[in-house]
Amino acid sequence: MAMEEKDLATIRDDILFFIREKQDAKLLNILLSMHPSDIAELIQSLDDDQAQLYLFNLLDAELASNVILELDDFTREKLVEQLGRKRLTALVDEMDSDDATDFLAELSDEVAEEVLKSAEEEGVQEVRQLMKHKEDTAGGLMALEIVTVRDDSTVREAIQEIRKKAEEVEDVYNVYVVDRDGKLVGFLTLKDLILHPGDTPVAKIMHRDVHAVPVTMDQEEVANFARRYDLIAVPVVDEQGRLLGRITIDDIVDVMQEEAEEDIQRMAGLADDEELRETSVIKIARVRLPWLFTGLMGGLISATVLSFYQASLEKVLSLAFFVPVITAMGGNVGIQSSAIVVRGLATGEIDFKDIFKRLVKELKVSFMNGAILALTIFLVVRIGWHEQVGIALLVGGALLTVIFVASLIGTTVPLILKKLNIDPALATGPFITTSNDIVGLFIYLALASQFLEKI
Amino acid sequence: MAMEEKDLATIRDDILFFIREKQDAKLLNILLSMHPSDIAELIQSLDDDQAQLYLFNLLDAELASNVILELDDFTREKLVEQLGRKRLTALVDEMDSDDATDFLAELSDEVAEEVLKSAEEEGVQEVRQLMKHKEDTAGGLMALEIVTVRDDSTVREAIQEIRKKAEEVEDVYNVYVVDRDGKLVGFLTLKDLILHPGDTPVAKIMHRDVHAVPVTMDQEEVANFARRYDLIAVPVVDEQGRLLGRITIDDIVDVMQEEAEEDIQRMAGLADDEELRETSVIKIARVRLPWLFTGLMGGLISATVLSFYQASLEKVLSLAFFVPVITAMGGNVGIQSSAIVVRGLATGEIDFKDIFKRLVKELKVSFMNGAILALTIFLVVRIGWHEQVGIALLVGGALLTVIFVASLIGTTVPLILKKLNIDPALATGPFITTSNDIVGLFIYLALASQFLEKI
Repeated sequence: MAMEEKDLATIRDDILFFIREKQDAKLLNILLSMHPSDIAELIQSLDDDQAQLYLFNLLDAELASNVILELDDFTREKLVEQLGRKRLTALVDEMDSDDATDFLAELSDEVAEEVLKSAEEEGVQEVRQLMKHKEDTAGGLMALEIVTVRDDSTVREAIQEIRKKAEEVEDVYNVYVVDRDGKLVGFLTLKDLILHPGDTPVAKIMHRDVHAVPVTMDQEEVANFARRYDLIAVPVVDEQGRLLGRITIDDIVDVMQEEAEEDIQRMAGLADDEELRETSVIKIARVRLPWLFTGLMGGLISATVLSFYQASLEKVLSLAFFVPVITAMGGNVGIQSSAIVVRGLATGEIDFKDIFKRLVKELKVSFMNGAILALTIFLVVRIGWHEQVGIALLVGGALLTVIFVASLIGTTVPLILKKLNIDPALATGPFITTSNDIVGLFIYLALASQFLEKI
Repeated sequence: MAMEEKDLATIRDDILFFIREKQDAKLLNILLSMHPSDIAELIQSLDDDQAQLYLFNLLDAELASNVILELDDFTREKLVEQLGRKRLTALVDEMDSDDATDFLAELSDEVAEEVLKSAEEEGVQEVRQLMKHKEDTAGGLMALEIVTVRDDSTVREAIQEIRKKAEEVEDVYNVYVVDRDGKLVGFLTLKDLILHPGDTPVAKIMHRDVHAVPVTMDQEEVANFARRYDLIAVPVVDEQGRLLGRITIDDIVDVMQEEAEEDIQRMAGLADDEELRETSVIKIARVRLPWLFTGLMGGLISATVLSFYQASLEKVLSLAFFVPVITAMGGNVGIQSSAIVVRGLATGEIDFKDIFKRLVKELKVSFMNGAILALTIFLVVRIGWHEQVGIALLVGGALLTVIFVASLIGTTVPLILKKLNIDPALATGPFITTSNDIVGLFIYLALASQFLEKI
């Protein structure tokens, strides 16, 4: 069962008491009954840095290496700074190749080099090999711990191979089958191995429809790939189709979570690296400020646009009343269009061949809703506010135009960003909302001044 | 390897040609070489409803049942409407219990009943059992196809059990161990079974730290649970701890995707049920309209607030110029605060005990950034725009206040929604942004009118 909130609070009080009393045996007794993820949460929940370190130092290298990988970035960085080189090396020696690579990448180059110098030879070679790949590609995600057999082996030999690698490869889901050149030609599930006699040739029973990804594939695409084919482990191959490693579903799940959070952060104008557990108010304020400054600049441009049409506003002050409606509606429509396009691009459901179709659809939708909303505001302004027909027509017409343009911007900007290899999710963020404000305001006031010249 | 975009286009042209020529054998030849997910994508990409149906009808029940589950909701609904009861029953008979239950839930009650009447008895019982659980809970996700052994069995008996259920349970990841009351007491991986002699008692080698979820747990929590403990299958238990079924990682991955998309849709003011492939412009427009109307109403309230302070605006028109800055900045700060709280609530990283700490942190951050931004705008208004010191002070002071209040609203509203069992992600959507606009405007103008009375 999961560790309940209540449990955590109780355990934490016990833990803090035993730390004060230096009752290491009792502390270990509690820790050894817990899952590494739960120990990580417990450590994170202790506000006291010294208590965190004390607890972590009680763990042996194997358990500690599992716990440190489960900590959030903020707590992990804090802890790592206080660990000696020897302890770091012991932790890295216990990790799988992919975890060790990620862990070392977070250290300073100097410390990472020192750790690599004293770590076990085999692991070091693997890490150096994995470090060549970009972090957010299939190569950056894969582990080298796999069970492989040649295509001329038997089921018995495959089982022997699993036995041989039992220590090294903790979770075996599939045994991969390669030809004499190392090319991936099929795979076997453990169920296949259990159900067939030992002398069955693997070539006879292996699944040939193996779904592998190239080592350079972007991690978001890898996640979509695994989801599409319901894979629990994705084999990674080089350009010649040779098997290099595998990515397990738990790492893919983390990628999905990361990508989803990134999209939401982009929409909210938060920096990618804002940590929930960050305690320094100055650091949080600093990462949030750039987007707010962009917003401020946008607002000042809006103010300039308004002052430019000062004469019109002085003539008919009530024009100013509808400024918030115009800007808010432009923003709302724009984000509806861009969010649906961004989502489609992320899941691969929208592609460039669809641009024109999508655009026409969005424009039709915005025209339809724009017409309904424009009619509504026309009636409200004319009947509710007793303004002249001309003003009511102006506000309604401007709203329709602004909605139409916002939808055009909302649909095309993510597609353009994607084409330029920039994250399209930026198009749902404050930059575009601010731009929409300015464009909307300009359209509204330009129409208004035209209209006022005529009366 | 994945089906590349280019491949899909080529295949589609071939397919359309063979459909016109009614070359069923050639069509089948192509389809049988494809993964069900790829067939689903191919069918979706055909614009012609008749061609979609023609292709689908070529598939035998087993393949067709896999393909139909991979189709997007929009295409599936369209197709299902054109299938006879007999074909529907044949498809349901081929599905796993959880898929069959979800599939039937999408049909009209009448059609579902008819299908259940003619379907295979065993499957029907399972579906009726699963239908009792709410769709978005562990019970609604779980499948009943599991391999279970009693805790007094041996490895050999566990392997026999796998053999017996080989047909029914396609993907076996773990064998669950229960006591005589059916209570879940441990599990074995297939690797354990392969590595131990047949006469080993399972009780001796089973993992006792089994992570199970209660049948009523919300699906988002199930996803967080699986991610936390790196599970590829989550066993589901009742209140007495008896094993009921299991949820496999592919379904959990779908839940994660669904929840992430839902959050983004909430932020963008899109309805949950807007489909990317929906072709009816009227339907899309209709689901988007409610949020836009909410925005329009909010805008009209803003207009009312402005008109209420008409006298002040007439006195100093330039006050109106800064309306977009005030509303935009309130929105930007509010969404930063709410998005980070919503994210923390979704992943379980923020809980109610943290409310006060979180709020203090957010308010400190907003005060800090607010002060910097207020100083900036003060200088711009005073020096750049040559306004009186009083006006510059007013705009700066109002901005600081609005940022502070927006951060307060942004932090507390998601927490309140969560407490009321409403999706906190709504707090990042247009309703709150619009409310922030109104509150910000009111603060700004109230301060302005106070100030103007004094000069």
